[in-house]
This record gives sequence, structure tokens and C-alpha cells, in this order.
Amino acid sequence: MPLLAVATKAFSYPAPVTSPEAADSDSRVFAVHEGGKLTVSSRTSIGSIDDLALTYTPGVAKVCLAIAGDPSLARRYTWVPRLVAVVSDGTAVLGLGDLGPVASLPVMEGKVCLFSELAGLSAVPIVLATTDVDEIVETVVRIAPSFGGINLEDISAPRCFEIERRLKERLSIPVMHDDQHGTAIVVLAALRNAARVTGRKLSDLRVTVVGAGASGIACARIMLEAGIGDLAIADRQGIIHSGRTDLNPAKAAIALLTNKAGHIGTFVDAMAGADVLIGLSGGQIPESAIASMAPNALVFSLANPTPEVDPIMAARYAAVVATGRSDLPNQINNVLAFPGVFKGAFDAGATAITEGMKLAASRALADVVGEDLRPDYVIPNPLDLRVVPAVSEAVAAAARAEGATVD
Amino acid sequence: MPLLAVATKAFSYPAPVTSPEAADSDSRVFAVHEGGKLTVSSRTSIGSIDDLALTYTPGVAKVCLAIAGDPSLARRYTWVPRLVAVVSDGTAVLGLGDLGPVASLPVMEGKVCLFSELAGLSAVPIVLATTDVDEIVETVVRIAPSFGGINLEDISAPRCFEIERRLKERLSIPVMHDDQHGTAIVVLAALRNAARVTGRKLSDLRVTVVGAGASGIACARIMLEAGIGDLAIADRQGIIHSGRTDLNPAKAAIALLTNKAGHIGTFVDAMAGADVLIGLSGGQIPESAIASMAPNALVFSLANPTPEVDPIMAARYAAVVATGRSDLPNQINNVLAFPGVFKGAFDAGATAITEGMKLAASRALADVVGEDLRPDYVIPNPLDLRVVPAVSEAVAAAARAEGATVD
Repeated sequence: MPLLAVATKAFSYPAPVTSPEAADSDSRVFAVHEGGKLTVSSRTSIGSIDDLALTYTPGVAKVCLAIAGDPSLARRYTWVPRLVAVVSDGTAVLGLGDLGPVASLPVMEGKVCLFSELAGLSAVPIVLATTDVDEIVETVVRIAPSFGGINLEDISAPRCFEIERRLKERLSIPVMHDDQHGTAIVVLAALRNAARVTGRKLSDLRVTVVGAGASGIACARIMLEAGIGDLAIADRQGIIHSGRTDLNPAKAAIALLTNKAGHIGTFVDAMAGADVLIGLSGGQIPESAIASMAPNALVFSLANPTPEVDPIMAARYAAVVATGRSDLPNQINNVLAFPGVFKGAFDAGATAITEGMKLAASRALADVVGEDLRPDYVIPNPLDLRVVPAVSEAVAAAARAEGATVD
Repeated sequence: MPLLAVATKAFSYPAPVTSPEAADSDSRVFAVHEGGKLTVSSRTSIGSIDDLALTYTPGVAKVCLAIAGDPSLARRYTWVPRLVAVVSDGTAVLGLGDLGPVASLPVMEGKVCLFSELAGLSAVPIVLATTDVDEIVETVVRIAPSFGGINLEDISAPRCFEIERRLKERLSIPVMHDDQHGTAIVVLAALRNAARVTGRKLSDLRVTVVGAGASGIACARIMLEAGIGDLAIADRQGIIHSGRTDLNPAKAAIALLTNKAGHIGTFVDAMAGADVLIGLSGGQIPESAIASMAPNALVFSLANPTPEVDPIMAARYAAVVATGRSDLPNQINNVLAFPGVFKGAFDAGATAITEGMKLAASRALADVVGEDLRPDYVIPNPLDLRVVPAVSEAVAAAARAEGATVD
């Protein structure tokens, strides 16, 4: 039975849209990617020997010497301060697993397209012929003078946690593993609005996160930082708690911060009476578990392309349903976060992406929805033109407020 | 006294042109570099959710899976096969020395502008926070899946030789240290035409190379491959010969191939009676040494911005004078080689840049001059639009003839 008592509008979840072009979608997809999706071009034309002498030798020598004398001039006279490296080892490509660096490239190129189209930033895919944590860290540190920020992408857990932590320690430029924090920022924004549309505060909510990979751990952390009521997180072995001896360091750390209710057992046990489900597992969640949740449940089933919970079924029980799918309402899409986060960090000359900057991004993203808030509109459309300015301004303001900038 | 008997036209070497804008050239230079010179953009627009689903998730998953199943499809569906990494550690920036990676960036960006503007190729500057040979090699190998070719740039000798050699061994994509081979290709092209305009064959010529760094060694090697008569090369300690005990491996190797005449002493001793001077030292060469050369001497004084030999003085003795300066005739500029060399290598799907491909590039470059050959026109203008097609076609043909391609 539908449980929509508190929602401001009855929540009618539509069936997925089947595009008329679906039949030939394979050929359309491959046509878009043919020849690669990116190009690097010169912002200055070189049509004469005079142009050549200004852009290249001998003129360029003056610029090099100026930067050698005052390295801060690199912020003014190179492209680096607005350039993102999209770094992957191809070990966790989308939900497809370890495809290796070369097969991950279409995703990384797509990410670069989005940085360019949405935020006006340049970015470059850097895919790595190693999966060794030490080697990845050393490699990125060595190429780091070429870039203004590092977007880690599609690197499998738990290696991604250590790689990000060590790179943040070693580098004084923004570093962010998007699968963790991009997802977390967007999930928290949607959750904030879902709570509001159902008349609750974050501190009222008891959450079950299913999936303790990169995004599950990061979503748990940002919800805790935002003051969530209680939260249990489960991996394939069940609910994470301090009594377990099979936890990697990231899970052991999250065990100390979560599950105040002391759940043990499987994720199904933690879902009974929970207000919120965050599905980030790629597995399947039975209808009975959804039915066992508290009234006005908020169900975010984010595996892509196949959600853990059939969204039509979930809508029979939940007040708000969100997925990762572009053909359904309430799409949780990282593209709502990373372009604005890096743009804001660059605008402020930030030396890192801090927890405060991520929380500010999430709140600004939620606020874009404003008074249009409805159960089927808790998060902006991924291409809403208001998003990048709102997120980037909030991130830049947070960076400046924290003093985490070079300027 | 001028020695122009054989030249087809009297050779009147002009004074350097002083641009009317010279007074404000500093401000013009810095204006061109303001904000950096490059941008990465998406070749496909993302204006709708449908575009997003094709370019990024979920559509991109199909492309990733296709490449995972058949890695050769990366040549078709990523930008990599036409993308150059311009890699430097900033240890030998132009003639300025070790400025470090950040201050080298304006040169690397300029190089990328030229790849784009002249050959329609994308390229990315990768500057490295290490000068250790092992670390540079490992770093480039690890990021290599991101690129279709590696242009090494402004890396000091003798480290550049080992770095290039080891990368060529490790990678099956084109790798070229441009300071060596770009210079060598252009010098040989100009020398071939200078010999022709003075009625001689390469095998008639006795050459002195002053400077045994990256470009000096590479010029010596390509001239030997092209069948030069005899060649002596000198470093700061004097003429290189097998009796010296202070030679690095690159110099020791070239000692075995050069100086059949058995010169010892300084470069001045080798210049007496020589037909050709190739100055790549950045030092100064006295007028008496130029005067001691054979009749119809060919003087290439390539230090930039200050040639080793005053070109006006040199023209009083020589039949052909070439410099690295854009304001004088016969400019020896690497831009005549690297765009076409990489374009040709990419067009053919080459797995390396071989000696044969470099010789083919050099011959094609010389042939662009054709029947317009004059003592003050032995090499095309750096922006001559015929150059990249001619060089790239010759390089691609050589690669295919050698079977050094993936196709």
C-alpha cells in the first residue's frame, strides 16, 4: 500500500520511458564515440611568423623565466590552475568491474566532456597501467605539476580510500575521488530535500546503506557529518559492526561511527523500521524488506542501469524514490556535483577539497530545487543550468571561509 | 671575402628585422600567454538528457565493454591514437637550462598549440616532479595507455638518451625526443639543400658539429646515416675521439662512428678546412675559425636567440648561412618536423618512430623547397602549409614500408 500521507503531493512514479530511438541506440552510442570525444586546441592562432615568435620561441622564453623567478605566476600564465586530471586504473568502471585502463577511456573522456560542457573547465583522462597503490600514488604525484586538480575515478575499494588519502597528504591541489564524494554530495542533497518534502529533519532519520564500497562508505560519512539520526551500513557479509573481524580499514573506521542501534545480521535486518534506504550495491533487495521500512520511507536505489529495487514496486511503499537512471525522476547523477565542485575550488584557488566544501556543495545543490520541491523532484535535473553556478559559488565561499586557498 | 662562386645566386644576408612592435613585445608576449594557451573541449554537445545518456552513462558502458572485448577498438572509439603527450622534466628549457617543470609549461603549451594548429593533432603537456631517469621512465610507462605517442621535450643530456631508449624499448607507440630528432631532421633537410645549391653531395662534405648535447649527438647520427663524408663533433672539452676517457656513453658511442680524420684539440682545430659547421653549443665561435673553413662553407649557427656566429659576419665567408632565428632567412625550426612526424606515424598506426621514418621526413622536408632553392632558401618557412602533408605522407609511407604499424 502506498504510504504518502506526509508528502505534499501524491507520488505517482512513472514507468521508464522507452525512447523511440531505442532500437538503434547501439549504433547511436557508437557513432557518438567514434574517433574519440575530445580535442585539445590552441586558444591563440598561429598564422604568421610573428604569432609563432610570440606563442613559441623566442617569446615564450620570457614567460618561462618570469615563472622560474616567481612560481605563483604559473597561475596566471599557464592553463594548469583550471585543468583537471581524470585519473583511473580502470578497476571499477561504472558497475562493470575491472575492465583495465584502455577500456575505461570512454568513461574518462565522457567525464572530460562534462567538465568542459557544464563548467567550462579543461580536463584530461589519465589512465594508468598499474593497479598498485604505491605506484598510483607516486605516478600521480610526479605528474601533478601538470594539473590544477585530480579527479580520481573508477578505482576499486578499498584501494581508492588509501590512494585518495595519500594524494591529499602529498599534494596541495584539489583531489577528489568522485565515485565517493560526488555520489555522497548528490545523495545528501536529495536526502535533505526528501526529508523536507516529508516533513522531517535529517536528525529524525534512521538510514540503512546497502553496499560498503567507495560510494557507500562516502555516503555514510557525509550523512554522519550532516547530522543524520542513525545509520547502519552493510556489505555482502552483512551489517558492519565493531564485532566483525573481517573488516578492511575503511569499514573498521565506519563501524566505529555507525549502527548506534547495534544491528547485527544482514541488511534486511537493518531495514526493518528504517526511514531511508540507500542502495549502492548492485545486488537485489526483496520487496519484503522495502515493506518492512518505516512509513514515508525514502528509497534511493542507485545501482545503474539496474536498480537494486524495482522503482515501480518501491513507489508502492515509499514516499520518495530515487534512482541513477536518466529515464526516471529523481536521478542521482554525479554530474550534479563534480563540475561545480572543481570549478568552485579553482575559482577560490583552493589547496584541497575539504569536508566543509563538500557539505556546502550538497546544500547548494539541494537549494536549487527550492520551492518546486515535490516527491518526484528532490534533486535538480543533471543538466539544470543553475546547478554549476550554485555549487561552485558555495564551494568557493567555503574554501575562502576555511582559508584553504592560495590567494 | 665572400665565397659564393658555386652558389646559384649571390648570397646577400640581410640584417635582422626589427619589428615595429619590438618596443612593446614584452607586453604582447605576456598577453598571448595570459590564462594559458590551451583548452580541451568536447567534440559532441551535451544539451539534453538523451545526449548525456549517449555520451556518458548508461550508453558509454557499451563502448567500454566493446573495447574490453577487443582492445583494438580503442583505436576507433577513443581519442588516444591521435593524442601526443609532450613530456618534460624542465631540466633543459630552450637554451635557458634547468627551470623546473612548472616554468617549462609555457614551452610545452606552445608545443601543443603547434601540434594542434599545424597538424590537427591533440596533445597534452605532462611536466614531471622528478628528474630521476628510472622514475621518469616508470611514470611515462604507467601513463602511456592514455596517449598515442610520446614527445619528449627539454630533458637534459645525457639523461635524455637513456630515457628515450628505455621508453622505446618499453612502449609500442611512437616515442621521440624532439630536441634530438626534430632538430636532426630539419638540419639534415637544410644541409641536403645547401649541398645541392652549392653543387655538392652529402658524401663530399666534411662536417664539424660544435656541441655534443642532445641535438648535437642526434644531428651527427642522422648525418652519418644519410652518408655524410666525414664528421667531427666537439664538446666543451674539445673534439670527441676514442682516446678520451671523460665521455658519457652517448659520446663514447658517437666517438666510434666519427672523426675518421683523427682530429684532436678544440672545435677550432676541426673547423680548419671543414665544409660545414653545425653550431649547437650556445657558445661563441671566432671569425678566424669561420675564415679557416673550406670554400663555399655551409654555416648553421643554431643557438637561440644568440647564434654562436654572427650571421652577418658568417655570410662574408660562407655560401649558405642558417640560424634558429625567425627574423633571418633559413630558419632551422623544429616545428618543421614534429607535427608532420607524429601525424604520419599516427596516420600509419606506427608502433615506433624509426630511423627510416626520420630520414624520410628529412628528405620530404628538403623536397618542399624544390626548384625555388636559393642560398637564402634552403629550408621551408616554418609555417609553409605544404610541409606537414609532405612530411606526414613520407613518414607514414616509410612506416608502412617497414611494417612498423599496428594495421
